[in-house]
Amino acid sequence: MIPFNKPYITGKELDYIADAVGTGKISGNGKYTRLAQQFFEEKFGIRKALLTTSCTDALEMCALLLNISPGDEVIIPSYTFVSTANAFMLRGAKVVFADSRADHPGMDEDSIEELITPKTKAIVIVHYAGVACDMTKIMDLASKYNLAVVEDAAHAIDSYFLTPAGEKKPLGSIGHLATFSFHETKNISSGEGGLLAINDEKYVHRAEIIWEKGTNRASFFRGEINKYGWVDLGSSFLPSEVTAAFLWAQLENMSQIQQRRIEIWERYDQNLRGHVENYGIRLPEIPDFATNNGHMYYLIAEDGFQRDFLLKEMKSEGALAVFHYLSLHSSEYFASKHDGRELKNSDLYSDRLIRLPFFYELAIDEVDRIASKLTEILERYAFA
Amino acid sequence: MIPFNKPYITGKELDYIADAVGTGKISGNGKYTRLAQQFFEEKFGIRKALLTTSCTDALEMCALLLNISPGDEVIIPSYTFVSTANAFMLRGAKVVFADSRADHPGMDEDSIEELITPKTKAIVIVHYAGVACDMTKIMDLASKYNLAVVEDAAHAIDSYFLTPAGEKKPLGSIGHLATFSFHETKNISSGEGGLLAINDEKYVHRAEIIWEKGTNRASFFRGEINKYGWVDLGSSFLPSEVTAAFLWAQLENMSQIQQRRIEIWERYDQNLRGHVENYGIRLPEIPDFATNNGHMYYLIAEDGFQRDFLLKEMKSEGALAVFHYLSLHSSEYFASKHDGRELKNSDLYSDRLIRLPFFYELAIDEVDRIASKLTEILERYAFA
Repeated sequence: MIPFNKPYITGKELDYIADAVGTGKISGNGKYTRLAQQFFEEKFGIRKALLTTSCTDALEMCALLLNISPGDEVIIPSYTFVSTANAFMLRGAKVVFADSRADHPGMDEDSIEELITPKTKAIVIVHYAGVACDMTKIMDLASKYNLAVVEDAAHAIDSYFLTPAGEKKPLGSIGHLATFSFHETKNISSGEGGLLAINDEKYVHRAEIIWEKGTNRASFFRGEINKYGWVDLGSSFLPSEVTAAFLWAQLENMSQIQQRRIEIWERYDQNLRGHVENYGIRLPEIPDFATNNGHMYYLIAEDGFQRDFLLKEMKSEGALAVFHYLSLHSSEYFASKHDGRELKNSDLYSDRLIRLPFFYELAIDEVDRIASKLTEILERYAFA
Repeated sequence: MIPFNKPYITGKELDYIADAVGTGKISGNGKYTRLAQQFFEEKFGIRKALLTTSCTDALEMCALLLNISPGDEVIIPSYTFVSTANAFMLRGAKVVFADSRADHPGMDEDSIEELITPKTKAIVIVHYAGVACDMTKIMDLASKYNLAVVEDAAHAIDSYFLTPAGEKKPLGSIGHLATFSFHETKNISSGEGGLLAINDEKYVHRAEIIWEKGTNRASFFRGEINKYGWVDLGSSFLPSEVTAAFLWAQLENMSQIQQRRIEIWERYDQNLRGHVENYGIRLPEIPDFATNNGHMYYLIAEDGFQRDFLLKEMKSEGALAVFHYLSLHSSEYFASKHDGRELKNSDLYSDRLIRLPFFYELAIDEVDRIASKLTEILERYAFA
């Protein structure tokens, strides 16, 4: 059975963990945390990066930094992971869900403006499958209405937005705040893990405090104050050096990992494009303003029946393809809180999207086999 | 220089991490998470144990499980780590700080009843230095006023409360909920890490949901429901299998670790008791109802001047002794929120407590050297 995902080690993870133990520090904010944070700051032009225990935790830091309070509204795509919404609801926000684009599971940028009210505090966008939202539209809206923008870049490491002027901006470096994930299914992984990217200088000082459990420990260690103490709300957002050391081994190999994942993506695409559309299948579209970071290869079935058939048959053929998010606006938890708007694209992707097996060690001949099995199954379904 | 703390590896940590990668799962809730949770359930009689990324996160889960809301009051010792309070304040609680005992930094059990009002929802106790609070008094109060009890057992792994009837109850198994820490300074460590212990059955189901980001994924994997979705608030509280594998290697060696730490504690005590009291120093007292888990060896200086002198001189003699908490009720963040009560024992420990170097690999002759230097320094201070 080819799994949907498979973690792997680059070879250095265990050495670096042993080294962290040797340095006398395995709690957070040591050598490997600093290496990982500097990597993001330098490589992706982020003002200040802070490792977190998960992308969820980085989103919770955003909600705290933006002082989200009961009554505040936050616009979030419905087609996303529960954490994107939970993080803001934990602070009392009213979440207003937006629909996806017709051509892509990412949030429909043109649907946002009509959702903005005087209570709106922030727009949280998700770069689904590592493919950029139209950041020109988003940042213009934010500027017009004085809103904060949080980029949920969980899928989007080493992916870029191409500005109308031809600039290539790393995702996660554009919004006021952004979050990354190192969950095991991500391009770069530490099992669980995340990172908060702070691009607006005004959030940097307080972010360090919130990250250190509401204390001014960071200022203390820089010698700016004589003793440290409790100065704000906060939590234990920082991961151990065990986690950071594992992560660093993967980050060091990012270019090799990215190259391989893009090869896998392109191989799927070469095998499928031009072959499966006749069966009603849609393949991923990358807009002109976005790049491909090889995070995920997905298909959109013609309906839920075809999708379920494909998932089941792929499994019996020995490859685990999986569906993805379920519209949050119609979830058991949120349905009664939703304002009744139909979000038909989000529902469509909930019903029809399929993710194919995708991981660093997936062999090219396995990709070919999966693609060929898929075509056979589609053929069988068409004549059933 | 003898550090205050030094992490170490038992030898199996890296093997278990490699094994976790081999199982195909390094995100949370895999094989090593289950092993660690079962260990706590079986060894310490906990109804349901859930690993978390920190003790802070376990405390946040407690606040969510208890439905702490703005206006609710929670009684917490002032002499504790900021997280004990932050976790409840993040949910809007009004924290009411209690004083420490005169004979021990733990919360004064007899000072609690007068702090209870109709708005009180919970008592959070801290077993400081792994030494039990008087759980008979605490549980009787909770029962009289229908309050929840959370044991912050961050220091208190493998420590016990001896009931008047002669029973030996593991700390963390007595309150409705309890939390443990695996921070690098703790007896058992994964760098950062924690565990939520649920002893009251009524919290088990919802705890699994909150732990899994507000989804009913646990029920789904047990085959109790057909698909899983968003059913409640939640967060990403679970650590990776990388962290859990590291932790498991330490838990497996717990009895050896505990034996060694108790030896170190007793060696300090033999060296100092009967020798330093003349200089105004108080040594730790273990009440009849408590056991010693070798978590920490501390002294209480006669005043802040003596304490600061000792810390400075110990450092120049090559051993890093450190102070501990600062009263939370008089912190920069909380002072204006405090009701003005004097908490003189908490302030006393803030000013005078000293923790001596304490870690698994600390050699007995190093303990002897530290104790002998300490006596010399006290002598010098007395004649200065």
